[in-house]
Amino acid sequence: MIPVVFHSLVDDPKAWEAALRAHLPEVDFRVDGPPEGVVAALVWKPPPGFFAPFRDLKLVVNLGAGVDSLVGRDDLPPLPIARLNDPGMVALMRSYVLWAVTRYARDFHLHARSRQWRYIHPRPLATHRVTVLGLGELGTPAAEALAGMGYAVTGWARSAKSIAGVRCLHGRAGLEQALAETDTLVVLLPLTRDTRGLLGAAELALLPRGANLINVGRGPVVEEAALLDALRSGQVAEATLDVFETSPLPADHPFWAMENVFVTPHLASITVPEAAAADVAESIRRVLRGQEPLHRIDAERGY
Amino acid sequence: MIPVVFHSLVDDPKAWEAALRAHLPEVDFRVDGPPEGVVAALVWKPPPGFFAPFRDLKLVVNLGAGVDSLVGRDDLPPLPIARLNDPGMVALMRSYVLWAVTRYARDFHLHARSRQWRYIHPRPLATHRVTVLGLGELGTPAAEALAGMGYAVTGWARSAKSIAGVRCLHGRAGLEQALAETDTLVVLLPLTRDTRGLLGAAELALLPRGANLINVGRGPVVEEAALLDALRSGQVAEATLDVFETSPLPADHPFWAMENVFVTPHLASITVPEAAAADVAESIRRVLRGQEPLHRIDAERGY
Repeated sequence: MIPVVFHSLVDDPKAWEAALRAHLPEVDFRVDGPPEGVVAALVWKPPPGFFAPFRDLKLVVNLGAGVDSLVGRDDLPPLPIARLNDPGMVALMRSYVLWAVTRYARDFHLHARSRQWRYIHPRPLATHRVTVLGLGELGTPAAEALAGMGYAVTGWARSAKSIAGVRCLHGRAGLEQALAETDTLVVLLPLTRDTRGLLGAAELALLPRGANLINVGRGPVVEEAALLDALRSGQVAEATLDVFETSPLPADHPFWAMENVFVTPHLASITVPEAAAADVAESIRRVLRGQEPLHRIDAERGY
Repeated sequence: MIPVVFHSLVDDPKAWEAALRAHLPEVDFRVDGPPEGVVAALVWKPPPGFFAPFRDLKLVVNLGAGVDSLVGRDDLPPLPIARLNDPGMVALMRSYVLWAVTRYARDFHLHARSRQWRYIHPRPLATHRVTVLGLGELGTPAAEALAGMGYAVTGWARSAKSIAGVRCLHGRAGLEQALAETDTLVVLLPLTRDTRGLLGAAELALLPRGANLINVGRGPVVEEAALLDALRSGQVAEATLDVFETSPLPADHPFWAMENVFVTPHLASITVPEAAAADVAESIRRVLRGQEPLHRIDAERGY
């Protein structure tokens, strides 16, 4: 048997047990139970001190795309940390981003509000400039799908990238150029020391007046007070937000009452165990053989 | 010079003149002006008797995808009629259909109404069954794009078709099977003798209770009174409608006040002259040489 511990308040242990067992029949899947012999921990935001009793642990698997809640902890054992590689999560994120961008590019948010016959001549999709910040496991397929739909897509990352059909920029100068040439901005950055507060008042002011913002990455990448100001002044016309500085978004938060803000409760994308379990099983087999797991993250860099 | 006449109350003659001249420099583009020598008519819903003065006409080009308003007339000259082949129109229709289906599949219509933090666990896209009725110039790329996004797609047409990644059904039995296995129904049929009123109370009752309907084809394909009943009873949960029995939709129509109906003012897709003009120019050259135009329609069949 291969003992594995599972901890998450948002993921379904039964779905994960079934999915993992399909690829690792000898798994001993523990939600409670003794820590002895446990070689892998599948976790999402475990409580402080969670890891201490697991003396035999060889691998930590983060049950989500963003590892910021894990790598910032001071009780993390010095072990390989793997993120999920989850085609189901990619498909959900792609569908969210295409929907949210198209809602603005095709004026559907305006039609929803009008409740009368008010024709707005459609513009060719290639005239709508979409900038995707973050070109990782989720940002890259989102940018590719937007380009495939016919939008004019720019991608931005910290370091240089190359994606077919997408103009790729990088570094601070590239960020400023990308923001200045954007109709709809899609934020898909991880939360790291470098990205916290990356989009403040100065950066939002670089957008053309009336641009739209979609945040499906991490809330604190965008300074919420600056975004509120920009939405009130019209500098940012519309926002679709799935992530926030405080989550769940408090009931008295001004976003709830703003017609130009579309709030979703952090579900742009979720882990789909059936799609992610094969790689988790393979990573467990690898660490048991003394090899590197798949999709190991760099805890220092933060993604 | 090649004299061409243009008539449309919704298309821009200047855009069409510029687009056509780029591919047919010798065009004499007439919006008014004498009918003598005019060889091709580019028209959208010309008034009765429009064609009579044009004695030298060799080709009628319909400035849209649906030819139902043209082929039903009794003053149509016995000439080849061509529809547009317009990649710009295809791209706009695809974006509308993907957006409208995703709005339902991802529960965004429910989140828009809740205005509070109410988590709904996302379902994998492959669990959402989309049926596309009509597999022509617009329906086929829409079905392909939906399948590419990850939805479970069935396509239906009068006669048998084959599309990669799409389950294709045909005939009356196929229609009944498709309806019974649908979460979201996309209507992209042309309006013909066979399709008028195709979806009445009996057909809507075949849908699983709580299915959604998107009509981006022609209004009279769906019996509006039956759809209203179904939307009120919950048999059809939600509808996104771009076309209607009467257009513009009258200001006192019940659809305007229904929370579960999303109305757009017939703009799911429009002609993009820059994308369509090359084939129109080629068709004009062909009829001048005594050949068949591109994209000739069958006036008897109606598409």
